[in-house]
Amino acid sequence: MNVQPKPGTLVPETVTTGPLQGSRKVYAAPRSHPDIKVPFREIALSDPAEPTLRVYDASGPYTESDVRIDLASGLPRIRDAWIARRGVETYDGRRIQAVDNGNVPTDKAVPPCPANVQPRRARDGQLITQYEFARAGIITEEMIYVAHRENLAREEAVANAAATIADGESFGAAIPEFVTPEFVRSEIARGRAIIPANINHSELEPMAIGRNFLVKINSNIGNSAVTSSVAEEVEKMVWSIRWGADTVMDLSTGRNIHNIRDWIIRNSPVPIGTVPIYQALEKVGGDPLKLDWEVFKDTLIEQAEQGVDYFTIHAGVRLKHVPLTAKRVTGIVSRGGSIMARWCLAGHRESFLYERFDEICDIMRKYDVSFSLGDGLRPGSGADANDAAQFGELETLGELTKVAWDKGCQVMIEGPGHVAMHKVKVNMEKQLRECGEAPFYTLGPLVTDIAPGYDHITSGIGAAMIGWYGTAMLCYVTPKEHLGLPNRDDVKTGVITYRIAAHAADLAKGHPAAHIRDDAMSKARFEFRWEDQFNIGLDPDTAREYHDETLPKDAHKTAHFCSMCGPKFCSMKITQDLRVEAAALLDNEKAALEGMAQKSKEFLETGGQLYVKS
Amino acid sequence: MNVQPKPGTLVPETVTTGPLQGSRKVYAAPRSHPDIKVPFREIALSDPAEPTLRVYDASGPYTESDVRIDLASGLPRIRDAWIARRGVETYDGRRIQAVDNGNVPTDKAVPPCPANVQPRRARDGQLITQYEFARAGIITEEMIYVAHRENLAREEAVANAAATIADGESFGAAIPEFVTPEFVRSEIARGRAIIPANINHSELEPMAIGRNFLVKINSNIGNSAVTSSVAEEVEKMVWSIRWGADTVMDLSTGRNIHNIRDWIIRNSPVPIGTVPIYQALEKVGGDPLKLDWEVFKDTLIEQAEQGVDYFTIHAGVRLKHVPLTAKRVTGIVSRGGSIMARWCLAGHRESFLYERFDEICDIMRKYDVSFSLGDGLRPGSGADANDAAQFGELETLGELTKVAWDKGCQVMIEGPGHVAMHKVKVNMEKQLRECGEAPFYTLGPLVTDIAPGYDHITSGIGAAMIGWYGTAMLCYVTPKEHLGLPNRDDVKTGVITYRIAAHAADLAKGHPAAHIRDDAMSKARFEFRWEDQFNIGLDPDTAREYHDETLPKDAHKTAHFCSMCGPKFCSMKITQDLRVEAAALLDNEKAALEGMAQKSKEFLETGGQLYVKS
Repeated sequence: MNVQPKPGTLVPETVTTGPLQGSRKVYAAPRSHPDIKVPFREIALSDPAEPTLRVYDASGPYTESDVRIDLASGLPRIRDAWIARRGVETYDGRRIQAVDNGNVPTDKAVPPCPANVQPRRARDGQLITQYEFARAGIITEEMIYVAHRENLAREEAVANAAATIADGESFGAAIPEFVTPEFVRSEIARGRAIIPANINHSELEPMAIGRNFLVKINSNIGNSAVTSSVAEEVEKMVWSIRWGADTVMDLSTGRNIHNIRDWIIRNSPVPIGTVPIYQALEKVGGDPLKLDWEVFKDTLIEQAEQGVDYFTIHAGVRLKHVPLTAKRVTGIVSRGGSIMARWCLAGHRESFLYERFDEICDIMRKYDVSFSLGDGLRPGSGADANDAAQFGELETLGELTKVAWDKGCQVMIEGPGHVAMHKVKVNMEKQLRECGEAPFYTLGPLVTDIAPGYDHITSGIGAAMIGWYGTAMLCYVTPKEHLGLPNRDDVKTGVITYRIAAHAADLAKGHPAAHIRDDAMSKARFEFRWEDQFNIGLDPDTAREYHDETLPKDAHKTAHFCSMCGPKFCSMKITQDLRVEAAALLDNEKAALEGMAQKSKEFLETGGQLYVKS
Repeated sequence: MNVQPKPGTLVPETVTTGPLQGSRKVYAAPRSHPDIKVPFREIALSDPAEPTLRVYDASGPYTESDVRIDLASGLPRIRDAWIARRGVETYDGRRIQAVDNGNVPTDKAVPPCPANVQPRRARDGQLITQYEFARAGIITEEMIYVAHRENLAREEAVANAAATIADGESFGAAIPEFVTPEFVRSEIARGRAIIPANINHSELEPMAIGRNFLVKINSNIGNSAVTSSVAEEVEKMVWSIRWGADTVMDLSTGRNIHNIRDWIIRNSPVPIGTVPIYQALEKVGGDPLKLDWEVFKDTLIEQAEQGVDYFTIHAGVRLKHVPLTAKRVTGIVSRGGSIMARWCLAGHRESFLYERFDEICDIMRKYDVSFSLGDGLRPGSGADANDAAQFGELETLGELTKVAWDKGCQVMIEGPGHVAMHKVKVNMEKQLRECGEAPFYTLGPLVTDIAPGYDHITSGIGAAMIGWYGTAMLCYVTPKEHLGLPNRDDVKTGVITYRIAAHAADLAKGHPAAHIRDDAMSKARFEFRWEDQFNIGLDPDTAREYHDETLPKDAHKTAHFCSMCGPKFCSMKITQDLRVEAAALLDNEKAALEGMAQKSKEFLETGGQLYVKS
């Protein structure tokens, strides 16, 4: 893989590229649509008898072999033709102002990305959002793309029925054996899934978020007032998706945020989410009480024109909820939530986000920006979990979901936070009930508060569980949570931890393709194919490095033992010897190993006496 | 903390000592027994209004301030007087032979630990095990010790009823508000808990393993044929318990294993477990087919005399089970299991561990070595989870549990392994049913197989869940699992991850004292007491280090913001401002914050219209 940019470089010049160890990027089209090329990662296995393993791949063109990335040109605009055919309007757009970039002095300004083009928006009366198309019975290119992407190798797996058998407990999810474009359409039409895809982000490789699709994960990037540079932020996006982030939220709050966002979006193959209130607050000098509808509206349009795919909107934090937080141990821990609570209480007035929700919908619809209805009152500690404030807000989010659907918008709902294990499930159940099965998007939850430095783990536990129960996307937490800003290693650790949680959830739900990768790993393990074990894993680099710490030589890559037990004590080696021996022993009796299983069954059925005549 | 020994030193000279940051070791006695001094760790908080936090502490004298450790003398023999009063027999014991140490040449031999004394055993007809005492209605010193230890600060908490309220879903566990010695006795008498405490390990600080006590964790240490030295192994034990391991298993298989074990036991305040078949196999040159009852019996006595507290015995791997593994993806992955399966199949004979189980009980009873009935057929991959082999063996373990109880022995049962989330709970339920509620002791389970390098996390998820469902002790997994031998950092990461899992389980079960630490952390967080946040956490060193990466100055330790959001965007700061503002606003109306909650309730009840007259 290629080098990362120098820290501190204002304009990013290069980012991490090249395939993961043992993998190559492929583009495959569904048979019905040879022009729709969907990315996958293929892991070649060293045993020629083993099929190549195809896995989901959100990493974009960066992981192609010999790819040349020119950040100033942005990624290929693969959706341009699709969107153009829908007849949208192209217009001049809002003029960028100094305040959009935090009034940064010219000599310290990040330039806008040259790849920017004129923004598009829906003409009056035109269908524009994926939700509107789905409701009208129209299957979009994005839906076809997503269907093929979700299927992984299921075309072949379905042909070979044995490979698709998967048990699971889905808690009411209904994952099909095979995902058709019509299935994607119907899920979106029912509000159970979204394809976050702003018409101004045509570089996007479409993906779905919904309970009946693979569980997705989000990583957060963003500078803050304290530290970080634009080069680091763009690289963090590329780095996040390299390891498996499905969407990226840009939570920047400092200077240059408009222009940094430009660079990120033009170079992002995954949906980009933001919290527009952060930038709105910057525009009014950081004082929540100076916020108003006009500055917020201006920010929504600014970001929608740039191509942000989903907005976190804390419209569920109503005046009536604020007093419910008074006796909490940790008050309000969502930044957006605390800003809005302060605004409401100071003037003793209803939230303008709530009151103007119709207008917000009208703006977001025009660009197909999806809602991520924010949980501004999520608990910041186990002590505050599932309280009246949190659930009161969730009920309001349910009400707003229906409004947004009526307006034609795509919607997902954000969730906690900090929740002990026994309180996790009711969050999912209540969300499904209140919000009409709109996709749930949770932060963790952290199942205990006593491990700062390890909150990727405390939250990974909760994330796996809530993903199993039905959460569609899991927002990652890094080891630095509650302590500091994540660096490159922290981002990777957070992403890998959440890929584990998401995959564990897919397995437990009974996703028909999920176990294929586990089974390939287990076979490689039993057969001592070390290289394959590294490459099948989520992080081949780390697996190889750990193995090489004790057994560095090339010969050890084919050794029929490892450093844990050594050659004499290897249980897998002994089992293999045992199988050879068993086969030889039984050969005389013309009974193969399968016969043994039958014998054992009879043996058990007859009460356990050896060699019963039957 | 003091330095670690030089790697490669044969005889350990020094180990890590000194208290954890912000903590001090205290010894406290129950009021009824001022002579029984039980260790705790106390974390002092910077806010004088906050009570000192008392936490469970398995780290032994090593974390005392200014402690002087002399490994050659061993730890204080705190149980000597208790055991002597029971009138046990002291005798010469088995003579140590060269084969016990793998026939190591004299110049490479580790010397025996000088702290060794003559072994003890029960006289004929004498009550000796904690189980026997419990059944006879006798409360031992160990039970009193354990009761006080499990209570943490519950004497005070019970006095202040508000502090003890804890919700939870216990799945049939019955954790009392306050643990009495009689409760400990009754749990042991019912077979629901054990106190692993060999009468030859009088240095032991007694601890309980049972579903109605705090969830415990085990760490594994041990050299292998490939690498490691005695100094590292003793230090690994000390290092494991420093971070919270409740028991330590010595899984050594190489040379010097008898004498290394000497040093470990004489210096261990926690129960030491072993898998005697490993050493027995060493004694017969590594060939499973040469194993027999005599060499195994010899090894049991050897290790029982040394003071090993619990033995993993794979007596459930019966001949009839072996064919059930034939079609598995990963065969048999337990070393002990594969050894016994090979032995059974080669001669087509029943396991000598199963056939001689009565005699094994008689030996173990004499020293009060607890059984850890091994799950030799646990799945090595999700694909093999919950299959006929695994559950067939579990049924045999249930049968053997009753035999061991009849013989007067303490018993716990080992469990999987690799199990996807939806298959975890049935493991616990079946174990409780088959084994009469004997404590369950599981390895993970790993909920997916696709993340080598991160199996502390894949297994930590399963461990938290099965701990919640009722598992009494969780065997840790380090990041090196499946790849190599864990180093110092890996051991620490494994222990901390499992402390998270165990604590998350305690919280979810509704353990009355578990939330106290979480609440203390959350309050410290909300009040920006950074030092307290570091110190309350499981790993103060890492938390502080992470915080200092972005905000290193002392002034930042009292800053009312952190590097994540910076001063302007700190939700907690905004919430605090909000509370001040709210209090001021409402002061006019003589309504305090509590009143606000009531108002809100009325507001919701009356359909949400502001200011209804009632």
